[in-house]
Amino acid sequence: MDIKNKIRLGHGSGGLLSGQLIKRVVLKYFKDKTLKKLEDAAALSLGQKNIAFTTDSYVIDPLFFPGGDIGKLSVFGTVNDLAMKGARPEYLSLSLIIEEGFSIRDLETILKSAALAAKQAGVTVVCGDTKVVERGKADKLFINTAGIGSLRMNLHKENIKIGDVIMVSGTIGDHGIAVMNERLKLGLRSSIKSDCAPLNLLTRKLERYKGTIHYMRDPTRGGVASVLNEIIDDTPFGIMLDERSLPIRKEVRAASEILGIDPLYVANEGKCIAIVSKKRVDSVLKTMRAHALGRHAAVIGEVVKQPDGVWLKTAIGGTHPLLLLEAEGLPRIC
Amino acid sequence: MDIKNKIRLGHGSGGLLSGQLIKRVVLKYFKDKTLKKLEDAAALSLGQKNIAFTTDSYVIDPLFFPGGDIGKLSVFGTVNDLAMKGARPEYLSLSLIIEEGFSIRDLETILKSAALAAKQAGVTVVCGDTKVVERGKADKLFINTAGIGSLRMNLHKENIKIGDVIMVSGTIGDHGIAVMNERLKLGLRSSIKSDCAPLNLLTRKLERYKGTIHYMRDPTRGGVASVLNEIIDDTPFGIMLDERSLPIRKEVRAASEILGIDPLYVANEGKCIAIVSKKRVDSVLKTMRAHALGRHAAVIGEVVKQPDGVWLKTAIGGTHPLLLLEAEGLPRIC
Repeated sequence: MDIKNKIRLGHGSGGLLSGQLIKRVVLKYFKDKTLKKLEDAAALSLGQKNIAFTTDSYVIDPLFFPGGDIGKLSVFGTVNDLAMKGARPEYLSLSLIIEEGFSIRDLETILKSAALAAKQAGVTVVCGDTKVVERGKADKLFINTAGIGSLRMNLHKENIKIGDVIMVSGTIGDHGIAVMNERLKLGLRSSIKSDCAPLNLLTRKLERYKGTIHYMRDPTRGGVASVLNEIIDDTPFGIMLDERSLPIRKEVRAASEILGIDPLYVANEGKCIAIVSKKRVDSVLKTMRAHALGRHAAVIGEVVKQPDGVWLKTAIGGTHPLLLLEAEGLPRIC
Repeated sequence: MDIKNKIRLGHGSGGLLSGQLIKRVVLKYFKDKTLKKLEDAAALSLGQKNIAFTTDSYVIDPLFFPGGDIGKLSVFGTVNDLAMKGARPEYLSLSLIIEEGFSIRDLETILKSAALAAKQAGVTVVCGDTKVVERGKADKLFINTAGIGSLRMNLHKENIKIGDVIMVSGTIGDHGIAVMNERLKLGLRSSIKSDCAPLNLLTRKLERYKGTIHYMRDPTRGGVASVLNEIIDDTPFGIMLDERSLPIRKEVRAASEILGIDPLYVANEGKCIAIVSKKRVDSVLKTMRAHALGRHAAVIGEVVKQPDGVWLKTAIGGTHPLLLLEAEGLPRIC
C-alpha cells in the first residue's frame, strides 16, 4: 500500500480507506476464499454441519450512549452479523481489554447489560478473556465478541438479480446520531436513541423466505450508502434508491442537517437491509412489519442494470450518486 | 467486588487478582455452566458435532520479540487453547484494533507472520475485523483471535485422579524471559527465544491416549505454578512437583535469577502440561519426545491426596508451597 505508510483513522471507518487497507494489506497475506468474500460472517462447514462464524471488536466512544452501551452493542453487533448471514446465533465469546484504573462499577454495568442482551438474543456466552493494559495504553474498555451460529438460509451476493428490491427494516441513522449527540455533547433532542437491537429475532421470521430473500446486511459503519456500495462492488449492477421512501426520523433528519451529514452514511445497529425478489416483496414487507424490529420497514430502492454504482433519486426528481466516501465522518461509532 | 473499585494491572495477570475479577465480577452476570468452568476453550455441541470454541486478545508489549511477534502469538495462542481442550483447530477469526499512526509496514510484517503461523498450524482464517482508534487511545496494535475446532478427546478436570502424573512437554519460562529481555532491554544472552509454537501438531499425536491423558493446559500467563493452582482449585487434591525434574534452560535460569523471579511463574507459549494416568506414562512420554515440540518433555510431579495446593519438593530435600500470586511479575506478556 503505497499511498500512505501510516494507519489513519479513516482506515477504520467502513469507507474507501477501510476497503483499501483490507484488500491491499490484509488479503495480501490471508487468501482463504471465504475470507476474501469480506462478508460480515463466514459460512463454513464443520463436519456435516453448516455454520456461520464472525468476529467484531467494539471500540465505541463513549461507552454509554442513549439506547445502549458497549456491552449491549458488542453482543447485538455480533448476533446481527450472524443473523445477516442467515444463521441462528448460538454461542458467543467475550473478550475484554481494560485500561488500568477503569471503574469496576462501570465494568459491572457493562457486563450486566451484555448479559441481558445475550438473554434477549437467545445466545450463550461460553468463553472469554480478560486483559489489562497500563493507564493511557487503551481507552477505558474495548470488547471483542466472536459468534457461532447454525446456517438456515443461503445468502450470497451471487443471488442478487436485476429488478430485486432493496428493503430496510426500519428508520435510518438512529445509532450514529445518538452516539454523536452524546459524544459531542450537542444537546440535541434527547428522544434520539441508538437502535441497537438483536436482528436474529426478526430474521428468524424471515427464514420462510429462503430463496426469496437473496441477500442481507446490517448497515453499521458507513451506513446504508456505504454498505450498498460494498454489496454491488464487483457486480455488474447498480442500485437506485428513492429518497422519498427512506424511513428517517424527524429528529435524526434535523440533527443530520445541523451536523452537515447525510443519514445514509450514518451507522445503524439494529437495522437490516434485505435484497428481495420482486415477486414476493409484499409478503416479506408484511412479515417484517408484523415484528417489533421491522415495524417501519420500507422498500427503498431496486437493483438496476444501469447506471453502475449506488444512486439516489431525489425528492425533487433529480438523481445523484451515493459514492463510497474515503472515510466516514466520525470514528469509533461501534 | 469491594476490595478495590478500580481495575489494576494485576487484574490481567493470570494470578489471584485475575481470578477474583473473573469469578466475582464476570461470572456474576454470565452464568453459563460451560463458561463457569473457566477453561481456555469451551466444549460445545453444535447439532451432532462436538466442537471447541475459544477467544483471546493479545496485548503483548513489545510487538516483536525474539522468536516471534504478536501475529504469530495470536494465531498459536488460540490454536493452543483449542489443542489443550483436545480439539483439532480448524477456523480462526482475526480482529485488529490499530492505533492511528501505526506503521503499515509493521502491520504487514505482523499479518505475514500470522498467515505463516496459520499455515504451520493448519488452520484457516475465515473472518476478521479492523478498527482504528485515535493516537494515544491504544498501544500500537491489539489482536483478538477466536477459534473453532472439532473435539477429539474428552478432557475434563473431573478426570484427574490421585497418583496421576504431571508432565510438561518441554522447557519452562522461555517466552516470558524472551519478552522481558526484549522489553526491559536487559541485553541478556540472545539465545533466549520465545517458545511460541502450534501445540496442535503435538497433541494430534496424543489423541491415541484418549482416556489416558486426563487433562491438558498450556501454562501461559502466570506460568506452570499459576496454571497448576487453577487446575486443582475446587478439587480435593494437591500437586507435588519435583524441582530436580523441571526442564529449564540454563540461560532462562540465569536470567530469572538476575530478575529475581521464579521460572515456574513465567509465561510459556508453546508448552503443554498433561495430567496423565500413571499406567501409561512411559508411552505418553515417548510419544511426546518423538515430536519436535516435545523433545524435552519430562515428568515433573504428581497429583497427591495431601497436602492441598501446589508444592515443590526442592533439590535439597525440603518442600515449599507454590502459591497463586496476587499478580504475575510483568503485565502484557501475551
